[in-house]
Amino acid sequence: PDVLCAQDYEALAARFLPAPHHTYIAGGSGFEGTLRANRDAFEHLQILPRLLRDVTAGHTRVMLLGHELRHPILLAPLAFQTLAHPQGELDTARAAAATDAGLVVSTLSAWPLEDIAACSRGEKWFQLYFQPLRDSTLDLVRRAEAAGYGALVVTLDAVVQSPSLRAQRAGFRMPDAVRPGNLLHHATPPQVELERGQSLIFQGLMREAPTWDDLDWLMRHTRLPVIVKGVLRADDALALKAAGVAGIIVSNHGGRALDGVPASLDALPAVRAAVGADYPVLLDSGIRAGSDVFKALALGADAVLVGRLQVFALAVAGALGVAHMLKLLREELELCMALAGCATLQEITADCVTHRPA
Amino acid sequence: PDVLCAQDYEALAARFLPAPHHTYIAGGSGFEGTLRANRDAFEHLQILPRLLRDVTAGHTRVMLLGHELRHPILLAPLAFQTLAHPQGELDTARAAAATDAGLVVSTLSAWPLEDIAACSRGEKWFQLYFQPLRDSTLDLVRRAEAAGYGALVVTLDAVVQSPSLRAQRAGFRMPDAVRPGNLLHHATPPQVELERGQSLIFQGLMREAPTWDDLDWLMRHTRLPVIVKGVLRADDALALKAAGVAGIIVSNHGGRALDGVPASLDALPAVRAAVGADYPVLLDSGIRAGSDVFKALALGADAVLVGRLQVFALAVAGALGVAHMLKLLREELELCMALAGCATLQEITADCVTHRPA
Amino acid sequence: PDVLCAQDYEALAARFLPAPHHTYIAGGSGFEGTLRANRDAFEHLQILPRLLRDVTAGHTRVMLLGHELRHPILLAPLAFQTLAHPQGELDTARAAAATDAGLVVSTLSAWPLEDIAACSRGEKWFQLYFQPLRDSTLDLVRRAEAAGYGALVVTLDAVVQSPSLRAQRAGFRMPDAVRPGNLLHHATPPQVELERGQSLIFQGLMREAPTWDDLDWLMRHTRLPVIVKGVLRADDALALKAAGVAGIIVSNHGGRALDGVPASLDALPAVRAAVGADYPVLLDSGIRAGSDVFKALALGADAVLVGRLQVFALAVAGALGVAHMLKLLREELELCMALAGCATLQEITADCVTHRPA
Amino acid sequence: PDVLCAQDYEALAARFLPAPHHTYIAGGSGFEGTLRANRDAFEHLQILPRLLRDVTAGHTRVMLLGHELRHPILLAPLAFQTLAHPQGELDTARAAAATDAGLVVSTLSAWPLEDIAACSRGEKWFQLYFQPLRDSTLDLVRRAEAAGYGALVVTLDAVVQSPSLRAQRAGFRMPDAVRPGNLLHHATPPQVELERGQSLIFQGLMREAPTWDDLDWLMRHTRLPVIVKGVLRADDALALKAAGVAGIIVSNHGGRALDGVPASLDALPAVRAAVGADYPVLLDSGIRAGSDVFKALALGADAVLVGRLQVFALAVAGALGVAHMLKLLREELELCMALAGCATLQEITADCVTHRPA
Ligand SMILES: Cc1cc2nc3c(=O)[nH]c(=O)nc-3n(C[C@H](O)[C@H](O)[C@H](O)COP(=O)(O)O)c2cc1C
Ligand SMILES: Cc1cc2nc3c(=O)[nH]c(=O)nc-3n(C[C@H](O)[C@H](O)[C@H](O)COP(=O)(O)O)c2cc1C
Ligand SMILES: Cc1cc2nc3c(=O)[nH]c(=O)nc-3n(C[C@H](O)[C@H](O)[C@H](O)COP(=O)(O)O)c2cc1C
Ligand SMILES: Cc1cc2nc3c(=O)[nH]c(=O)nc-3n(C[C@H](O)[C@H](O)[C@H](O)COP(=O)(O)O)c2cc1C
Repeated sequence: PDVLCAQDYEALAARFLPAPHHTYIAGGSGFEGTLRANRDAFEHLQILPRLLRDVTAGHTRVMLLGHELRHPILLAPLAFQTLAHPQGELDTARAAAATDAGLVVSTLSAWPLEDIAACSRGEKWFQLYFQPLRDSTLDLVRRAEAAGYGALVVTLDAVVQSPSLRAQRAGFRMPDAVRPGNLLHHATPPQVELERGQSLIFQGLMREAPTWDDLDWLMRHTRLPVIVKGVLRADDALALKAAGVAGIIVSNHGGRALDGVPASLDALPAVRAAVGADYPVLLDSGIRAGSDVFKALALGADAVLVGRLQVFALAVAGALGVAHMLKLLREELELCMALAGCATLQEITADCVTHRPA
Repeated sequence: PDVLCAQDYEALAARFLPAPHHTYIAGGSGFEGTLRANRDAFEHLQILPRLLRDVTAGHTRVMLLGHELRHPILLAPLAFQTLAHPQGELDTARAAAATDAGLVVSTLSAWPLEDIAACSRGEKWFQLYFQPLRDSTLDLVRRAEAAGYGALVVTLDAVVQSPSLRAQRAGFRMPDAVRPGNLLHHATPPQVELERGQSLIFQGLMREAPTWDDLDWLMRHTRLPVIVKGVLRADDALALKAAGVAGIIVSNHGGRALDGVPASLDALPAVRAAVGADYPVLLDSGIRAGSDVFKALALGADAVLVGRLQVFALAVAGALGVAHMLKLLREELELCMALAGCATLQEITADCVTHRPA
Repeated sequence: PDVLCAQDYEALAARFLPAPHHTYIAGGSGFEGTLRANRDAFEHLQILPRLLRDVTAGHTRVMLLGHELRHPILLAPLAFQTLAHPQGELDTARAAAATDAGLVVSTLSAWPLEDIAACSRGEKWFQLYFQPLRDSTLDLVRRAEAAGYGALVVTLDAVVQSPSLRAQRAGFRMPDAVRPGNLLHHATPPQVELERGQSLIFQGLMREAPTWDDLDWLMRHTRLPVIVKGVLRADDALALKAAGVAGIIVSNHGGRALDGVPASLDALPAVRAAVGADYPVLLDSGIRAGSDVFKALALGADAVLVGRLQVFALAVAGALGVAHMLKLLREELELCMALAGCATLQEITADCVTHRPA
Repeated sequence: PDVLCAQDYEALAARFLPAPHHTYIAGGSGFEGTLRANRDAFEHLQILPRLLRDVTAGHTRVMLLGHELRHPILLAPLAFQTLAHPQGELDTARAAAATDAGLVVSTLSAWPLEDIAACSRGEKWFQLYFQPLRDSTLDLVRRAEAAGYGALVVTLDAVVQSPSLRAQRAGFRMPDAVRPGNLLHHATPPQVELERGQSLIFQGLMREAPTWDDLDWLMRHTRLPVIVKGVLRADDALALKAAGVAGIIVSNHGGRALDGVPASLDALPAVRAAVGADYPVLLDSGIRAGSDVFKALALGADAVLVGRLQVFALAVAGALGVAHMLKLLREELELCMALAGCATLQEITADCVTHRPA
């Protein structure tokens, strides 16, 4: 009764989660400038509806990496979903199956990727964080291949986890029971001592950050298409395309990576312009309603991923919640398309939107 | 005593209406972005007054569709006005008669269109929603013709009614007693079952949405001029003109249709530029004061319609309220013209306004 | 002790005036959009200081209409100053004398213009409202000439007094004891009956509004230079210069005339550009600090007038208050000039300011 | 436990300082428009991160005036630091030594410059205010040279101290015990009487303000490089470079000099463009986080200075606080660089940032 639109799960979740957990999930990094920018960007874009179009043959189908999806709303990779619900990623996978939603499973899932795959159906991708040891990375890749994941999503914007100041102040600590189900058997790399004058960041934390070489290595070692998540620059997008990456996700990690970067929606047009019309470009960060999906598609995205809405709905009502949220989101998108006179995603073109006057 | 300007009826109405009713009327669809944008647009425009002009021969007369109106302020079509006052549309019609205001009667009027016509005098138009069955639509057209309405206003931006989240949360339900006076005898079309995989929106709700063919059909079946309400795009405006439509109303349904579309005032200049100087273009959505009328005219409207102010005044004091509100609005417009040095509506040109610096 | 800067008189005055009186003085017309715009305009302009300039020969002298003023801060014409203090305009004149401030006395002064002149010293101008009867207007002109006023300031932006909604809601009524000292003996013009269909505004109130003919007539009937107050358009400014007007005041009556017009500061650059560098252009509306004076001068004003600060200071401490306020304002201007590296008003050029980034 | 980032010292300091002292330090001059603008400018700039860069050889070293600094974060000159902590500047110097931070010591230090120098190590500069008597100025210069200071920083934007209205209202008075340790033995110049009609500002306070001649004189009388602090104009920057000044600091004194001037960050690009790529340009005013340092460097600064953070940390925990704050700030900068793909300060180029859409 409280849920009239997908975004209502956001407010509702606060009643179903301990406050520090909620803050951890809802919050962004640093001063949350990017978190705010994500929403601002959607709110500054306006939709210009066309009249009198026949949309009775309308649908939301989209081709991605050679597969057809029934709609362009995917579930973003989210770590540690048992924080929100005991069934965690299993329920998310069930909801994806029930709603034909593309599923992206995090390296840091609380349940093992094989168990999640067993609950799923349809398109699913594995989100890969490079591990300190190449063997561990390769182990994840092989398991994802074996479990039937159709692509690897390499997330590159969170090589160092940026702490959420708000969550820390709220006293959030990851509960001991919540553990990375895929990484439990991995060897821990030998601890490296820094020399005097070396930097904790550059010579410490960043030692394990992936580079262009690592990405090349990965693509040579898997038969799966590789998608890069966390792109905000047009030149990076072009270089990734040239390097043989199969697609990119314009994202700022929902405002949880480096604080102060642009809204992904603001970064999208230049990225799309750089890679051309046919290259797969997805977007996430800030999607809260079907009209947001519409706006992202109008500015050049082929599809979008939803992060927080997913885990909020999971917290409220498990698999049912996530499925319901996805159903609402898709209906909101369809209603928006219908009222804007767009029968297919292809018809959602740049001239369907305009920037709000300042 | 509380009413010093037309807009005062807005605040005052809250005391005369049950809270959910008030919320239903005042609210916009979705997150009310367009509702806010409508007011922002007027507030961002500034008036550049000319000095020392002789305006003693001044007047507010305007020609619309070959008829002269004494002033350019029309009453917008508003559904179910008995929600606000038992006499509903009858009183609105009386007020229009008393103030020489053009009247637009909604398909969804609570009183039958014939009864409303009987209370009216002067220019009146019938707002037509296409009905599920062409026979029902034709029935409305014939009755409007017979009752002396001078034009059909086809509203195209609300083919699916967008629910107001705020009103739903406030617990608003349309009272059983409030019914569509014009549609009671219409046959209900057979319920259509959706097939598996079909969309509730595209193959369901939108099946009955009018298309260019329907508009053509309508124009061939009536001798009345047809005006289209709900235009926001210049290309649509041009196509409508080319199709033989007699005039258009730039409108976003007062922020009650698709949320996220631009303020009608922001959409107006491009529309006017597209259709040329002589084509009838009206505007509504957000008019709250005489200076708003002035601004709309300066950006290219021939006349405006007032929606909420009308029903707020109706709730406060019935026919007298509406008439008083119209009188205030017109005096505000005249004062604004006088102080800006404009003796006629023709003198309210684009260079009488300027955008507020950002 | 509470007064650290000129603007402090604004807050302080609220303690010295009955609330409705304060609201009447502080308020603007309509929805106070112009009132807010006036302050916004000053706050959006930034000062670009020059370093290392020798300003030890600095001063604030300015030539206006052939007379040298010691500083460019004049007292704006304000009606009915006994509302704020029993000595009203007499005290204002004394303060002007004490601080070498140019004084502009309102047609609607509570004290007769001769009495005010008797308290004054130095440059003083008479602000003229055209009266319903030309004889009355001429009577004022002759008295002003006789009393030694050096110019006529014809205010054109308030031909109809726009009511302040806020003041009306606060229950403000002009006290019976407060009367227009200059007009008491004037004949009242015969009341004119409006015919049916005539407009209260166009054929009623505006009948007495001055036109270009009236302005010409006035200039032919006085030996005093005529300055026009209330200019916001470049084309009007140019026409006034061509008509032989001696100077203009860019003003929106402190946001008390037509609500919705631009900030006078925003209107200033185009006006100055139109009339050329040497034509006298003054500005008022929104001046609250010495830095505001600096900004107005940088954008092209030769001098400024202060309205509300004057009457607020008068309410707080009579002639002493006004003199103190003027002293603070002038010191603030000098400090601003000194820190910006400007030794004279001529050095306050357009490149001393810049617009705040949006 | 309360300090998660450098900026946390700002909030925390309020608990360690008497309210009027805190207000004095935190406040800006006038209406604090510039104080706000400083923060706005940083918040309006966004960072565009590059992916997949190898930063394992990363560092933050920078060459300034022929010396290499380990990082580009200097301690700004701040008067009277015993106000915040009894050890005042001595502790600041110790913190600088412990963190390899460049130190700038104020003319108005509470401790004598020699004592401060004795606590320091590495790069230190002396901030010089011209004194009323040239002998006093020369005395300061000679002492700074003798004590091993490596440059003179001549502050030019505060020739007249602008009072903070907020601090005055909070009742702040400089405690008697807090005295300018460097100036106690200086002769007081003879008090000059103003003549009638002379200005307290121009002929009074500004008599002692330095001019281009004084700057030339200074450069002829010292072997130390001279840096000018308080530059906001490109033409001034160019003239200073031409005059032989060794470098400049774009600064508005943290919003404490003339209120209403631009944010230093907004002024930086034009200044850098004017003086060319190789001329030393530093920036302060508004730095609160490592990402702010990144942004300043991206727009052209070679290094930055921190003012208030320094004295807030000093108030909270003396030398340890300042050292901790500097460590946090540097780590924040490094993390920002790492996540943005910049291994060295040279790689922080203008295309690493973008303005937030309006
Ligand atoms: C609690 C939480 C955990 C996340 N964990 C991951 C993760 O493990 N891998 C990843 O690539 N992105 C992760 N993300 C980022 C999401 O994939 C996605 O980019 C982001 O949530 C989109 O923004 P939105 O939440 O506004 O929809 C996480 C986000 C949240 C909120
Ligand atoms: C309560 C309500 C009912 C409405 N009903 C109709 C309607 O039946 N037909 C129609 O074309 N527009 C309808 N509208 C839209 C108005 O005609 C008009 O476009 C809108 O109210 C203008 O904006 P304003 O309320 O800001 O003046 C309705 C609006 C409101 C507020
Ligand atoms: C209470 C009050 C009375 C005024 N009376 C007059 C008047 O009689 N004649 C006139 O030309 N302007 C009048 N003005 C306008 C002022 O001359 C001046 O344009 C305005 O106050 C400037 O704006 P400021 O108050 O922000 O300084 C009046 C303004 C106020 C606030
Ligand atoms: C309490 C205080 C005292 C200051 N004293 C001096 C000073 O003696 N000399 C000087 O050049 N700047 C002085 N400044 C300005 C700083 O050097 C610096 O420009 C400013 O604090 C930078 O802005 P921030 O505080 O936002 O970092 C002072 C600033 C503050 C807050």
